[in-house]
Amino acid sequence: MIDPVDTLKQYIQFPSVSTDPAYADGMVGARTYATQLLEKLGFEVEVVETELHPILLAERFGKPEWPHIVLYGHYDVQPADPFELWQSEPFDPEVREGRIYGRGAADNKGPTIVHMSALARVFEAHPDLPLNLTYVIEGEEEIGSPSMTKFFDRYADRLAKADFMLVSDTGSPSTEQIVVTTGLRGLVGLEVKLRGPKSDLHSGIHGGAVYNPLQALMELCASLHNPDGSVNVPGFYDDVLPVFDWEREELKRYPETVESYREMLDVPAFYPANGLSPLEAVRFGPTLEFNGIGGGYQGKGSKTVIPSEAFAKITCRLVANQDPHKIQQQVRATIEARCPAGVSLSMRDGGVAEAYLVVPPERPNTPSDQPPALARAFKSVDVAIEQSFGHAPIYLREGGSIPVIADFKKRAGLDALMVGLFTPIDNLHAPNEGFDLGLMEKAICAFEKIFKEIAVI
Amino acid sequence: MIDPVDTLKQYIQFPSVSTDPAYADGMVGARTYATQLLEKLGFEVEVVETELHPILLAERFGKPEWPHIVLYGHYDVQPADPFELWQSEPFDPEVREGRIYGRGAADNKGPTIVHMSALARVFEAHPDLPLNLTYVIEGEEEIGSPSMTKFFDRYADRLAKADFMLVSDTGSPSTEQIVVTTGLRGLVGLEVKLRGPKSDLHSGIHGGAVYNPLQALMELCASLHNPDGSVNVPGFYDDVLPVFDWEREELKRYPETVESYREMLDVPAFYPANGLSPLEAVRFGPTLEFNGIGGGYQGKGSKTVIPSEAFAKITCRLVANQDPHKIQQQVRATIEARCPAGVSLSMRDGGVAEAYLVVPPERPNTPSDQPPALARAFKSVDVAIEQSFGHAPIYLREGGSIPVIADFKKRAGLDALMVGLFTPIDNLHAPNEGFDLGLMEKAICAFEKIFKEIAVI
Repeated sequence: MIDPVDTLKQYIQFPSVSTDPAYADGMVGARTYATQLLEKLGFEVEVVETELHPILLAERFGKPEWPHIVLYGHYDVQPADPFELWQSEPFDPEVREGRIYGRGAADNKGPTIVHMSALARVFEAHPDLPLNLTYVIEGEEEIGSPSMTKFFDRYADRLAKADFMLVSDTGSPSTEQIVVTTGLRGLVGLEVKLRGPKSDLHSGIHGGAVYNPLQALMELCASLHNPDGSVNVPGFYDDVLPVFDWEREELKRYPETVESYREMLDVPAFYPANGLSPLEAVRFGPTLEFNGIGGGYQGKGSKTVIPSEAFAKITCRLVANQDPHKIQQQVRATIEARCPAGVSLSMRDGGVAEAYLVVPPERPNTPSDQPPALARAFKSVDVAIEQSFGHAPIYLREGGSIPVIADFKKRAGLDALMVGLFTPIDNLHAPNEGFDLGLMEKAICAFEKIFKEIAVI
Repeated sequence: MIDPVDTLKQYIQFPSVSTDPAYADGMVGARTYATQLLEKLGFEVEVVETELHPILLAERFGKPEWPHIVLYGHYDVQPADPFELWQSEPFDPEVREGRIYGRGAADNKGPTIVHMSALARVFEAHPDLPLNLTYVIEGEEEIGSPSMTKFFDRYADRLAKADFMLVSDTGSPSTEQIVVTTGLRGLVGLEVKLRGPKSDLHSGIHGGAVYNPLQALMELCASLHNPDGSVNVPGFYDDVLPVFDWEREELKRYPETVESYREMLDVPAFYPANGLSPLEAVRFGPTLEFNGIGGGYQGKGSKTVIPSEAFAKITCRLVANQDPHKIQQQVRATIEARCPAGVSLSMRDGGVAEAYLVVPPERPNTPSDQPPALARAFKSVDVAIEQSFGHAPIYLREGGSIPVIADFKKRAGLDALMVGLFTPIDNLHAPNEGFDLGLMEKAICAFEKIFKEIAVI
């Protein structure tokens, strides 16, 4: 048996910050600890070397005709700084008022321990549970999963034998209301740089003759949206599918109103495009967003300069059926076509990631070829979550991107059943990350049932 | 007699960086040295205390009916860093190939020594030259002349008795072609800040619902110009006077073509507004310029954030007859009116300065009440410069601002005769500042004649 809270405490104690070479020991520690847990659960663990942090590939197989699930997670965490804003040490977890605090508690160590604890309980009662299991626990999720491409090159065929994958790396609105995430947005990055004069110029001596690159940049970027907030890039919306009616119905059950959402973000007003409500827009609509702009004098007071350069960092969030490469090309072409003559333009492509969408069973648009094991899993989640949490889950797409999910679908044909276990107060990627122990116990009970249901004991 | 080059060398050796308290000794040294020079020339020097660096007010008076000139200059200099880019020590001047190199050589110590050397020669031949002279040499020009307001409060009446002022703190296009600057642009500063959500948001989770402050800022700022490059602020051009025909004629003599100017700035194309040529636009047109913009992620790569805030630093350059307070109010009101509902706006007023314009004698629009001494001075400059330099000066407004010049006019009623003695290769405010010794000697000869002509010996 695994003691979930103790196990999670020990797991958090390994500071596995993947982005910082100073935490190499923490990465080894967390990986070794996860390996031992998997071995204790009867898995055969392969440590797949990569160019940076190895991936754990673990299998617990019985007969080939048994249902087969891939469980995905990650053992790396975000950096913990600024340390001074933590109430307790980020890598020395503390339990306060029914919550455990520490870096990685919710993202993704807590949910990983939920799955493992549930499996431990099931295996204790049913050592021969008719379920084939593959674990993929990577160590580079927080830095964009750069090693997964080569991993798929080598292991996609093996993974493709599974029926679907199970993931708990998404969120739910509260500890009472679980969301099953049915979609993730894709992503396209692009950096735009405009150059005017070869060096900064005195705005008195030369102002009026040259096209100020800041002005040119702002005019160019302003042209990328219409006054109604929609994206003004020809073809941008061509491949967007309409929102399904059942999705709008699910959203009605979501425990957040437009007003409570507005208060949470503390904005004067919302600005959704294309007739979507704000809660719809973040889930069902694509965006073109400016993440950073800069140029010229940044200090206090003023400096009367016409700067030489200006930049804008852009990312688009895409919805299902939009091709990120096509969108990247459309945005590039639009910017090129609209760039004025007085400045010179350079662009740098950022990352691209496809959107992902899975439709639960028995919806009007459920694919006819949905694997029976996945349909059964969805139903078992529905029942088990309602029993444990008192409310059936809500089936909703979310606005964030987890590129590796679409990659599992594309490379190994696996759809994902994503059960959200972190909540808004868990402070992911921020100081005082925490995980609710009540939710943890309810989730373990639910997953115990889910694993048994999928296996059909 | 003064040896001009030796005197300038010694003057430069005092590192009079007004902005940096570490150079307090250098400020005292330069001030004391200038005081001694003035006393040697027969001036009575008053060291006027200010909150920071004292102002030298020196007088050499004879009979009240003599013509009376105010000579303006400054003994402070710009910081010299980056020191490593200097070929010789900035405060240990070196003569190389007919030029003297050192901080302040051209701005403004060289021109100051030109005036003083010319006076020394004149006084040697004519100890009783019938000319009343007042020197105002301040120590805060490079930091915006903050003490001059109080100085005018106290001394404006005394200065008002003069006929006009003589200044050599502007530029000429080459050592062969002197420009008499007939106008300076005014200045209005404004900083705009837009705030959206109370903190940075995840662009996946919340993108599509909120008005990104970077987008709002760029749309707002883009609205401040029309597609033809003119400023789109109601009333902005209301008080702009048309360019005088004689100014266009003078500009034709300027030794720079649009193409040579474009090559110098290394821009793909120019973007002047209101039908002005690029060389006209920087002199005769007002501007609204962005000096700095920023918000969101500024580092390498990407960060998928909707930033909480964005800012733009704006300055307008104004031409004669535009009221800077009125323009500041118009720009503020326009920005307020156009700020969208999804963000909140704050603005901070920057400095304001009036434009300045003086019309040389015998032009169609020369004021009928131009002081005869000023008219005589303009004519003597015309003749003396042509004799010394081989070309008559060009009479042109320039695009930069020297707020104190308009203040002398406003507070003491003095017009300014501005004879430009530095050239583009003098590297003002940059490493390797220098001053041409050939130009220096020619200018001293010219000013010798000018002082004698004004005095009418």
